[in-house]
Amino acid sequence: MVNLNDILASVTKRAQASVLRELLKRTSEPGIISFAGGLPDPKSFPVEQIKKVLDKILTEQPHIALQYCPTEGLAVLKTEIIKLLKEENINLEADNILITTSSQQGLELVGRAFIDLGDTIIVSNPSYMGALQVFKSYGAKMEGIDSDDNGIIPESLEAKLQELQEKNIKCKFVYLVPDFQNPAGTTIPQERRVKILEIAKKHNVLLVEDSPYRQVRFEGEAPEMFYKLDGGKGENVLSLFTFSKTFVPGIRLGFAIGKPELIANMCVLKQSIDLCAPSLSQLITSEFMASGYLNPHIEKVTAIYKKKKDAMIKALETYMPEGVRWTKPEGGLFLWVELPKNISADDMFDDAIAKKVAYVIGSAFHHDGSGKNTMRLNFSYATIEEIDEGIKRLAECVKDYASKVS
Amino acid sequence: MVNLNDILASVTKRAQASVLRELLKRTSEPGIISFAGGLPDPKSFPVEQIKKVLDKILTEQPHIALQYCPTEGLAVLKTEIIKLLKEENINLEADNILITTSSQQGLELVGRAFIDLGDTIIVSNPSYMGALQVFKSYGAKMEGIDSDDNGIIPESLEAKLQELQEKNIKCKFVYLVPDFQNPAGTTIPQERRVKILEIAKKHNVLLVEDSPYRQVRFEGEAPEMFYKLDGGKGENVLSLFTFSKTFVPGIRLGFAIGKPELIANMCVLKQSIDLCAPSLSQLITSEFMASGYLNPHIEKVTAIYKKKKDAMIKALETYMPEGVRWTKPEGGLFLWVELPKNISADDMFDDAIAKKVAYVIGSAFHHDGSGKNTMRLNFSYATIEEIDEGIKRLAECVKDYASKVS
Repeated sequence: MVNLNDILASVTKRAQASVLRELLKRTSEPGIISFAGGLPDPKSFPVEQIKKVLDKILTEQPHIALQYCPTEGLAVLKTEIIKLLKEENINLEADNILITTSSQQGLELVGRAFIDLGDTIIVSNPSYMGALQVFKSYGAKMEGIDSDDNGIIPESLEAKLQELQEKNIKCKFVYLVPDFQNPAGTTIPQERRVKILEIAKKHNVLLVEDSPYRQVRFEGEAPEMFYKLDGGKGENVLSLFTFSKTFVPGIRLGFAIGKPELIANMCVLKQSIDLCAPSLSQLITSEFMASGYLNPHIEKVTAIYKKKKDAMIKALETYMPEGVRWTKPEGGLFLWVELPKNISADDMFDDAIAKKVAYVIGSAFHHDGSGKNTMRLNFSYATIEEIDEGIKRLAECVKDYASKVS
Repeated sequence: MVNLNDILASVTKRAQASVLRELLKRTSEPGIISFAGGLPDPKSFPVEQIKKVLDKILTEQPHIALQYCPTEGLAVLKTEIIKLLKEENINLEADNILITTSSQQGLELVGRAFIDLGDTIIVSNPSYMGALQVFKSYGAKMEGIDSDDNGIIPESLEAKLQELQEKNIKCKFVYLVPDFQNPAGTTIPQERRVKILEIAKKHNVLLVEDSPYRQVRFEGEAPEMFYKLDGGKGENVLSLFTFSKTFVPGIRLGFAIGKPELIANMCVLKQSIDLCAPSLSQLITSEFMASGYLNPHIEKVTAIYKKKKDAMIKALETYMPEGVRWTKPEGGLFLWVELPKNISADDMFDDAIAKKVAYVIGSAFHHDGSGKNTMRLNFSYATIEEIDEGIKRLAECVKDYASKVS
């Protein structure tokens, strides 16, 4: 009998320590109103249109839809992506694009392309957990920078890059989610973006712009993408996208845009990960887009999410005790709650489950485990009634906990 | 502007050196009869059944088919896999199974789970190129063992493991494709399997049994799977499967079976690679299987491939000059040609392309670049007429080359 401990690679040890997985399992216990996941509302899925699209592609192109395809992705989907990014005033060629099997795979490819064990990267506090997980698995040394209600703070970035430079440490990249950040729900305003890009250029450092939610904007004006601000050639920016929030997650499709040399490198790495993204998913998506279904669908989704976000904000205002604050996202799926410093969302989690409401502990989004008094709430999945009831339960939890520690 | 060479990880350097990708691109030039790929025959795709299945799942379970799913895979698909493996006299529980996004991802997870830079593994000469690519990307030190028309030679494995033991070097695993090996088309007979497993147990080494083609058997008796021979608990064997050859590749679905502890480790690693395999692909496959479509479909496919294999063998017998030998697979998609020692299939490749026929150079399947006088031929994709014409062209190539070097 083989003893696994003798043969497992060191990455399995770095990856094993996920308490969070255990927490998340408990959020699906019966009767629990969960604000923990990041699931789109299944009632928003464009099922009838997908049926139509599938009938068409399986009638006209089954030999493509069901066959292997090139690692870089199908040309027809790239064509639709090029059109889509024109709306951002970004002009792409096919060799700027790599189709990925989910945006998580985009993150995985970033980790693999850049991180050797012990390499330094910069992430914001808080940052998307799935990204931290990848960077940790590659053994990155993560340096955190501060953020506020307008996302990462340029001065904090500048100071950190300066500090690294003085220590002669190369920063491989800066990871950021500029629009409706997961977990905080914050968006970096235009002038702050300009400043951040200037700093990145000055220090010759790559920005990885993770953009899963950008199109899910329900109010306010969109600042320009970093990729656009950088000149649209990928000189200092690599951007990641997904179809999980604008279309459906069950097809596992995303894409990366960047300079051809980098995209080609990532493509070679992807080849050994899964050869290619599902052709069927790619044709469903390109045909959905070519049929003009995408933008109206996004409008429908954002209208639903705006109502849910409004309901959550209203419930927070109604039920939460003094000293609790939250972000007010203009889009996306999440908002961020800061409890008084003496309340630990980690410790309170069991009480919340007992009261049949769930969230994700904020410390899971901090590379250093800080942020104990924070939590992420998802507003896209629960119904409006559940949102009201769930926030009420959560507020009771906070009050009970506060009375215990005060 | 960021200089990529300053920030790319060492894996990109290990992964870049693929001459083969360039060769493969040339095989799709117009007019070329290609025996190079590993594509199933698109005329075999069960399009009408897939349409039926899709209509059913999108009507009854769109909220599952289009949503995220657990990293380990959907329970309904695992249930069908459990039934499928019963045919092999293997009794599985759900926690023995990890659904993978393609069998390539299965290999990727093996590489990631076990290989730290510089770790030693054992592969056969020749071995599947996509596996070698993964192992190389993780920086494995590969030790090759000999194989013949019956697959890897037990004495060669024993000698190698002995040698490593004397040097105090841990072998992380032995990689093998026991049925209709890619590239050689060979199958390891029952008694040789028993011997190999005994050797593995004696040396406490894991066997990675890659099994993409096993069900595509068109003649002869199947020996037992290594997983079965080992007692069916995954003590010394981890096995990888795919639906690409028995169903369709465009859905990118495979699975791994092993002991629960290992499967759980691989599941955590998969989470950061792509969160989960496409739910849509998983439901299509489970519903296809639950409808009883899989086995009749496999019978249809194997009947087609048998005819094509027979046509290729016949053409080889008709056209090839003396001194050329080839394997006679009882299943799968490939056969293996050995040219006289003084003929290099690498060098001959340009002539073949000029004569409008393509193959994969055998050296690409050797971890050490040996095997220059060998080539892999795929018989599943080309039509029977193309097979005859293509082998004729290839034989002319060999004769021309032989007359030049003799």
